[in-house]
This record gives sequence, C-alpha cells and structure tokens, in this order.
Amino acid sequence: MSAERFEKKKTIDLRKKHIGPSCKIFFSHDPIKIVQAKGQYMYDEKGQRYLDCINNVAHVGHCHPDVVKAGAQQMELLNTNSRFLHDNLVLYAQRLQATLPDKLSVCYFVNSGSEANDLALRLAWQYTGNKDIITLDNAYHGHVSSLIDISPYKFHQSSDAEQNQYVHVAPSPDVYRGKYRGEHLDPATAYADEVKDMVQRVHKKGGKIAAFIAESLQSCGGQVIPPQGYFQQVAQHVREAGGIFIADEVQVGFGRVGTHFWAFQLQGEDFVPDIVTMGKPIGNGHPMSCVVTTKEVAEAFMSSGMEYFNTFGGNPVSCAIGMAVLDVIVKEDLQGNALRVGRYLTNLLEKQKEKHPLVGDIRGRGLFVGLELVKDRLKLTPATAEAQEVIYRLKEQYILLSADGPHRNVLKFKPPMCFTTEDADLVVDKIDHVLTELEEALGLKSHNALSVENESSKRKLPTDENGPQYHSGLAHNRGSSQEVPQQTNQTPQDITLPTNSQSCDMILSFT
Amino acid sequence: MSAERFEKKKTIDLRKKHIGPSCKIFFSHDPIKIVQAKGQYMYDEKGQRYLDCINNVAHVGHCHPDVVKAGAQQMELLNTNSRFLHDNLVLYAQRLQATLPDKLSVCYFVNSGSEANDLALRLAWQYTGNKDIITLDNAYHGHVSSLIDISPYKFHQSSDAEQNQYVHVAPSPDVYRGKYRGEHLDPATAYADEVKDMVQRVHKKGGKIAAFIAESLQSCGGQVIPPQGYFQQVAQHVREAGGIFIADEVQVGFGRVGTHFWAFQLQGEDFVPDIVTMGKPIGNGHPMSCVVTTKEVAEAFMSSGMEYFNTFGGNPVSCAIGMAVLDVIVKEDLQGNALRVGRYLTNLLEKQKEKHPLVGDIRGRGLFVGLELVKDRLKLTPATAEAQEVIYRLKEQYILLSADGPHRNVLKFKPPMCFTTEDADLVVDKIDHVLTELEEALGLKSHNALSVENESSKRKLPTDENGPQYHSGLAHNRGSSQEVPQQTNQTPQDITLPTNSQSCDMILSFT
Repeated sequence: MSAERFEKKKTIDLRKKHIGPSCKIFFSHDPIKIVQAKGQYMYDEKGQRYLDCINNVAHVGHCHPDVVKAGAQQMELLNTNSRFLHDNLVLYAQRLQATLPDKLSVCYFVNSGSEANDLALRLAWQYTGNKDIITLDNAYHGHVSSLIDISPYKFHQSSDAEQNQYVHVAPSPDVYRGKYRGEHLDPATAYADEVKDMVQRVHKKGGKIAAFIAESLQSCGGQVIPPQGYFQQVAQHVREAGGIFIADEVQVGFGRVGTHFWAFQLQGEDFVPDIVTMGKPIGNGHPMSCVVTTKEVAEAFMSSGMEYFNTFGGNPVSCAIGMAVLDVIVKEDLQGNALRVGRYLTNLLEKQKEKHPLVGDIRGRGLFVGLELVKDRLKLTPATAEAQEVIYRLKEQYILLSADGPHRNVLKFKPPMCFTTEDADLVVDKIDHVLTELEEALGLKSHNALSVENESSKRKLPTDENGPQYHSGLAHNRGSSQEVPQQTNQTPQDITLPTNSQSCDMILSFT
Repeated sequence: MSAERFEKKKTIDLRKKHIGPSCKIFFSHDPIKIVQAKGQYMYDEKGQRYLDCINNVAHVGHCHPDVVKAGAQQMELLNTNSRFLHDNLVLYAQRLQATLPDKLSVCYFVNSGSEANDLALRLAWQYTGNKDIITLDNAYHGHVSSLIDISPYKFHQSSDAEQNQYVHVAPSPDVYRGKYRGEHLDPATAYADEVKDMVQRVHKKGGKIAAFIAESLQSCGGQVIPPQGYFQQVAQHVREAGGIFIADEVQVGFGRVGTHFWAFQLQGEDFVPDIVTMGKPIGNGHPMSCVVTTKEVAEAFMSSGMEYFNTFGGNPVSCAIGMAVLDVIVKEDLQGNALRVGRYLTNLLEKQKEKHPLVGDIRGRGLFVGLELVKDRLKLTPATAEAQEVIYRLKEQYILLSADGPHRNVLKFKPPMCFTTEDADLVVDKIDHVLTELEEALGLKSHNALSVENESSKRKLPTDENGPQYHSGLAHNRGSSQEVPQQTNQTPQDITLPTNSQSCDMILSFT
C-alpha cells in the first residue's frame, strides 16, 4: 500500500490552490481523506474504517479483486480504440444485450453517464427530427451543457440560468410529496396525463416532441419511485406525438432494485424504453458507460451521415472490466442480496417510522432506499437541517450516508451491493440514536408535537474554502477542525435553506 | 495472453448486430483485429506485427509497463470520487500545473476531451457572461452536442445540420491551402484580422464574444500549423471584445511537438491562453482528461452557484496513471525523442517532396507531421483517392497510417512517442514505393504532368457493413477479403469525393 504522501492539511491546501472551487468536497469543515477501500468499507489515512452506505459506483464492492484483475490483465495486453475489431467489445455488447428486452439490441460505448445521456438526446433528435424534450422536475441527467438544460436539479442552482426553450419540465411522479399523492386513486394516470397535457401545450406553440427522459427511479430528485404504469402511459403519449422514451439507468441499473436487473422493469413487462442509458456502477469506478437502443433508432442516426467516434469508449480494458462486473453480480448473487438486504433494511426503517415522528416516509426498491425526514407529517415540512445533522452525526461514527432531494431532507441509501444485514442493523441503530436525540432537542414527543421548533438547533450555516455549505452546525461542536465557525443562536429563518442550493450537489457527489 | 474468443468473421457479425453502425471501423472491407500491442507496435490475431504511426493516445507506447503498474496498484487500493481528499488528485494537479505558465493554475478533471471542451465552453460562458463562440473552419472539438456545434468538421457531414446562431467560423490559418498562403507577407496578422472582423460583425448583430477556441495545431483539420504570432493577435482581439482564448491541446499536448511540452507554446512565451483542455494522450488510453484555467475564471464559475461534480473525474486511479505518463515522458526523454525523430522524419519526407510530384507539402512539429498529396502543385488539386491508396497499400505492408483534412489528402503522422528513426526510415521507404507506383500509373513524370489523370485508378467506391466508405479500390485487388466488391472502370467524377464525408471520421478514429 502506498503511504500517504502529504499530511492532511497540506492536501487541503493544495486542493484549494489547484482544484476548481466548484468541485465540492464532502464534510468540507473536516473532510475525510480516504486512502483505501474494500467491499462496503473505506479507510482513512489513520486506518479508521467507514461503513459506506452511499457509493453506488463501487457496485460490486470497492476494489473487487476480480474486477481489478480483469482490468490489470487487459491493460497489460491492449488498450486501444474501437476502430479495430476486438472480441471484448462485441462479447460485452452481447452480454449487456442479454439483460435487456430483445428490441434493445444496439450499443454505443462512451465514458460517462453524461456522455451517454448527451448521445441519447442526439439519437432522439436525429430519429424523430424533432427538438423538444420533456424532463421531470428535480431531475439530474449530467454535467455537460446539453444536460444542465434538462436537469432542473442543476439549473435551479444558478440564479441567472435561462431555461432552454425546447425543454419542458413535467411534475416529478412523487406520490409522497408531489402533486398527486398516495391517497390519489390513480396517480400513475394523473402524472402521465400531466405529460399528455404538456405535449399538447408544446404542439400548440409549434413545438414537436423528440423525447421524454427520466431516471427509472429519481435519485438526486429524492429517491422517487414512480407509480407502476406511469412509464407505459407516458411512453404512449410521447410516441403518439412522434417522440421516444429515454430511461436513464445511470444511478439505478445493474440489479440494484433486487427484483429486476433494470429499474425500468419495475414498471412491468409491457414497458420497453426506446433508449436506455447506463453509467456509474457499470465499471465499478472505471470511467465507462453505455447507450443501448433499437435498430431503428441506430439506423436513423447513421443515416444522418455523421459518424460517431468516441476515443476511449468501448476500449478492451473498459469492456473487460464491464464483463467482470457482470460476472461478479452473478457469481455472488448480488442482485439477490440487494433484494434480501434491501427488504431487511426497509423493514428496519419502517420500524423507525413507527417510532420517530421525524420520519415521514420510507420508500425504495432493493438497495435503493430513501428515508424522508419531515417536521410535520401532515404539512410535510422538510426537516432539512435535521437530515444534515443525521449525516454529520453518522460521519462522526464512521458511517457514510447522504441526503438529497429538492429539500435535501431525504436520507439516501445506495451502498455497494455486498452490503449486509449486519451493516443495515448498524446504520439503522445509529440513525435511531440520532433521531431520538434530535427529537428530544426539538421537543418532539409525538406526531402532534412536530411543528414545535427548538431554537438551539438553528445556527447560521458556515462557509468554507469551497464556498457556502449547509449543515446544522451542531456537528461542528464535536469536530476537531480549526475551521469551526463561531456559532450563535439565530432567528428561525436562518434554518430555511434555499431549495436546490449548492449542497444538493455536494451530496450528489456520492451518487 | 488471453486467446481470441471468436473467429474474425464471428466478431464482425456480432459487431454488425450489437454496435451502433455510426461507429466506423478502419479498413471496413477487411478490418484489422488487434489483440495485443507494445510500444509502437500492434499485433493481430495471427501474431502479425503492425507499425503504428497514428495512435497518439498510446502516447508513451502501447501498454507501457510503468503506466500499467501504476493503474493496477491503485485499482487494488482505492478508486473513488473526488469528494474525498486524496493525495493523487492534488499531486497530479500540481505536477500538471508545473508544465504550464503560472497563471494557469486551477484544474478540473474529467473523462474525455469532449467533456473537457464542453466544460471549457461552460467556463467561458459563465466568466464572460457572453454567448458567442468563434471556432476555426475544419475544426473538430468533440462529439457531445455542444461541440458538434463548434466543429465544422462534424456539422458539415450532416446535410440537415443547422448552424448554431452563436457559433462563428473563422478561416483556418492554413498557409498552404488557406486564404493567406506562404507567399503572404504576414499571414499571422491577415488571419487574425479575419477574427477581428468577425468580432465586429458579431457585435453589429448584437452578439457578444464568449470565446475563441482552437486546437493549438489543427489535427483533423489537416495537420495545420498556425503562423507564429497568430494566437497572440487573436487573443488580443477576442479579449478586447470581452471573450477568452481556449487552447485545445487534446491531440497535440504532452511534449509531442518536441521543442515544447504544449503546442500553444510554439507561438512564443508572450502567449498564454485563458483555458487549456487536455485529453487523448494524458492517460495513455485510460479514459481521463483535464481542463486548466486561471483563478479568475475558476472563481467566476463558482460564483454562479452551480457546483461541478464529475463522478469519475480525478479518481485516484486516473491520477496515478496520469502521473505515470508524466514520469515516463521525463524518464525516457520522449519529448526529446519527438524532437529528434520528428526532425529526422520531416527531413526524409522533404526528400520525398523533391522526388514525387504528388507531394505538395510537408509540415509539422516534432512527432506531429502532415504530408499533403496534390495532383497539381499550382492548383493544389487534392489527391484524395491517392492518399487513401497510400493508406491501404501501407496497411497491406503492416503499417498503420491515416489521412485527414477537409479533403482527406493529408497523411497524418502522430505515432506513439517512442517512434524511432528506423521506424521513420521504414514508413518513408514504403511511401516512396507506393508513390512511385501511383505516379507511374497516373502517368505523372514531372510536376508539369500532374494534372494528367489515369482512368484506371478511378473506381466506384464500395459500401460496407457500416455504410459508405471511400477508398480508391485498388487495394481491394490485393486483399483477401471475400467482401471485395466488383470493380469496374468509372467516369472521372466517381473519384471526386465529397468534402467532409464520412471517411474523415473514419480516419479520425486514429486521432
């Protein structure tokens, strides 16, 4: 193992000097220096172990030996572009195809979820000849400029962002906090009808729909599980308008949902997207991703006369790594594990809901689970600062969890797929402890007392070397960092965090 | 070494079935299956060795053991995102910075040249508050949608591409074939004045310049070397208009030009871009890239409130690999080798120019060299089919070379940096032989005879599994492929290849 090269302070100083300040760090007042990782554990420079509940990129476990070996062996042999024939490329495409409905048969290998979603838009524009895109509120689809345009999660962060005239934002199909909720008789149809109405409005203005794009389960949007049947209806409306359906599986694919390999399959066997984009977990951390589509879309793209070439995409090393990831998922039954441990975790969290008034909702599939904190179960007042407090308190106890969603009050579980029931016990026990303390401090004794607020938990949020960050401040009292800001009691409005502020993305870092 | 998994025919069939047909393959009528590579050599499934004159991505040599080792060791230890502190990230940023002028001090690590150039545009838009971009004719800057917009090389390929209203195309500063040529007294000023005039026209229409972007040496554009002083003057005009200068070093950086580490430095010490983008050679094939800019631009980007997070960018494995590449460049004096072997190669090619009427121009710096073939040295009639013939004939002799430029008549040399004088001797000797035969067949005996054309070399261009490809057809007579098309004599216009057709990009594959 290579030793630490710099003391932590020096690492921080160099980072301030040479890394773009828009690139945030987690726990900025006292960031973590990780030097090693294995399975569901990460280790800091002192050898302290952290339980990782958030890194869905390290899908089959950090530094899985089979994946490392596959990558190292192929790197030694050949790493070149896809202009040459190579068996890894076609074999891997064949293996990916085998996990998908038959009609999704043509692959484009690229380097990141962002490159995949951008290519999906290009395919849609070319295939349909149309320009307008429907996206969901709170959606995040990537960081290149075309994707900022279709990511309300991002463009709401910038005060001067102009919304692209071809982009239309439909309501997020969130049955907990959205426009149509659990008590609605048919939220799937109600949300799909919103898209139908939007298509009509676009047509009235002279627009033409190229595509509807959505994550199969919204991740940054707050671990949102669309009601079953929603995608089928949306697809029908969009296809009738000449558009296609893009399912973004960058966060949630590769068996994470437990019952199925792809999250869009949760909607039922009668639903097949026109394009599926993949990313993060595909290479267990290796920079790679893929777009899969139908023969018809692929042929239309070719007919434009414009070729597609991606320097690194589909190189033999990436493909070897991608195949090793698929092998490990099967060999270690990680999809089955996601189902079993995910159910176990969800059951534990449901018990927390019974116990803690701060817990508003538990939702998830497999090892993709959200716990939404609210200060009032009727008004659904987001318990944003409390969610941040949980995150900070868990970090002190060497557990990595994050919070996200438009109000950053949804605790997100999306651990490496080797996560165990013991890990689930540990993290839920710690959450139980923190929530108990928080509720005591807030004077929350029962559901009726939820709107009572406690001034002591409201503190001015500090800024740090990387710009403003938002957290309750309580954690600072326990931190050892010299950068701990002065803490003073503040008026209640100090705790009101702007929606879609920077810290959304801070947490996104763990996606 | 892993054995071949499929017979070549099966690999081709699977590729047709599962890989997007827009993803072209080199020598599509008889593609090469490469299974291994080392240094400047690649090996096919039969163990046949090819001399690689084109893969600038394998910068320090294919599968360099130091790079492989650095990657494998770090993969075993940790591969995670940049939200955690890691010494590799800051150390690598520091080392990259040390190769650049002081004011270029802030790095953003991303996954591809395309991601880098897209981020450069975002930085420019945010820093300047302006929208208009000036790009060069024949430029290629990447494959994501924002970059197709600024890449005439790409958007000219599509008959129905609309030019983005914010994008303005200035003449390529090509002193051989461009608007102002070698005989011009001051082509640098003349080309820069074109940009100045363009800025004024944009202003008259109410636009505002965000950036001028150019490769430091145009690669796909035809190995174009801008006259010295051009960038300084362009930068002055663009900065006076409130814009910034983006130098795209994706193809040409990391010591390739021999005298300097970065190609923009060829313009003189008084020139410093506001943003430099890097890519291809940076990780010797590993998917990674970088944007470096000034503190001022970085701070303006942060002030938008929108964070930048890139899942894979700057991970410890990529940084370890990036550092190993820098180490090998120094340890093996590859920049010095590029200078020495580049000069040797250029001298050999100059002798070819004296000998062969088909050779119109030799230009280059270090191991980035172009040989432009023309049928008439006065009219500069592009010898496109002849250039393709050279490529095909060299391939039959196990040498990989490509042709590019708007007329695809420029033979491009950009080999791994460990290329030797013996390699240069070999490839030039083969080119000599092919040119001699071609000139005999064309009846070219002297410069005066250059416009004489020989019908026998004009053949209908075949299509293949991946759509139309352009080559002279002569090579087919010698090929063993069963896909050899029927050859018939055709009228002269059959040889007239469309500018910016698909095969540009076919060759781009080797960039």
